[in-house]
Amino acid sequence: MTDSTLEPTGSDPSLHAPEASPSVGGAGSVVMRAVGHVQSPRTEPIDDDWDGITATIHLDPSQFTEDSLEGLDAFSHIEVVYVFDRVEEQAITTAARHPRGNRDWPMVGVFAQRAKGRPNRIGVSICNLIRVEGLQLTVSALDAIDGSPVLDIKPYMQEFAPRGEIRQPDWSRELMAGYWTCPEPLKDR
Amino acid sequence: MTDSTLEPTGSDPSLHAPEASPSVGGAGSVVMRAVGHVQSPRTEPIDDDWDGITATIHLDPSQFTEDSLEGLDAFSHIEVVYVFDRVEEQAITTAARHPRGNRDWPMVGVFAQRAKGRPNRIGVSICNLIRVEGLQLTVSALDAIDGSPVLDIKPYMQEFAPRGEIRQPDWSRELMAGYWTCPEPLKDR
Repeated sequence: MTDSTLEPTGSDPSLHAPEASPSVGGAGSVVMRAVGHVQSPRTEPIDDDWDGITATIHLDPSQFTEDSLEGLDAFSHIEVVYVFDRVEEQAITTAARHPRGNRDWPMVGVFAQRAKGRPNRIGVSICNLIRVEGLQLTVSALDAIDGSPVLDIKPYMQEFAPRGEIRQPDWSRELMAGYWTCPEPLKDR
Repeated sequence: MTDSTLEPTGSDPSLHAPEASPSVGGAGSVVMRAVGHVQSPRTEPIDDDWDGITATIHLDPSQFTEDSLEGLDAFSHIEVVYVFDRVEEQAITTAARHPRGNRDWPMVGVFAQRAKGRPNRIGVSICNLIRVEGLQLTVSALDAIDGSPVLDIKPYMQEFAPRGEIRQPDWSRELMAGYWTCPEPLKDR
């Protein structure tokens, strides 16, 4: 499952924008075109333990040359904007709910959590850039599964880090405890 | 100029997806629907001095209720995904160029800089959340101009900060020097 998600999957012809250059359409709609896709050993959506994953981002050779990546290797980290394209429309919840269904945590709205079942299904993640070769970027700990369409790649600059004191609720720290490095009980499964 | 950018601006009917729920269309195209828009005192794209700007994000009441923002006020910072919708297609460069046209800096590809003239025109920014009232979020130092369509809002969690040593080229630090707080010479203009 690599290129398959970049093939047509919609059935409504109105969704098939011919050239799909970025455009603001009707009723606040925006048409975007994937700039590439993720190739990852992780093929199923699993919530935790992303640290061990090394993935590759393949830029679309019909749109880009190596020129578009010139100078990127001077950065240690990149920010990847991608689509949770395996999320079905009916799995998109906007109403408040317990994150991961855990009743020990409060009910929060979709914009107060980072769950993948969200409007527009956009994922944004900062990962380590290991290597740039041609139109391929090798990255570690990118939390996107195999085949995910990539919408943008930005270099990470420290100046874009949040400024001032950071405050976040306890539930979010508990949820994130195993996100990168898996806690032992899950590793034993 | 507030709601105007959410009105139809395209002329190609194929871009006017009827309901524009998130869908992967043909040839790797993805149709998104703005979840809201930015209201900002800054109406022109200016590169620097964003710290003094207080803006409001208005969620679309036809899609959301206050429930979608439940619990967000427990976070000090949010990540906003928006569209540089005032960028014309011909201003989108993928080839390497000097950031901001400054010849003292190296030629870098579009994915090695964060310029707004980029494929899919997506901006991602972390800003301070000051207040949530109904469907309005008041934020400070959001680097999106008035009317920008918003695609997603995510709570900022420290665990999503880059891990390991951060490396970035000197030109990026020089470019960012006046991004938040303006250097005196520009302030005097």
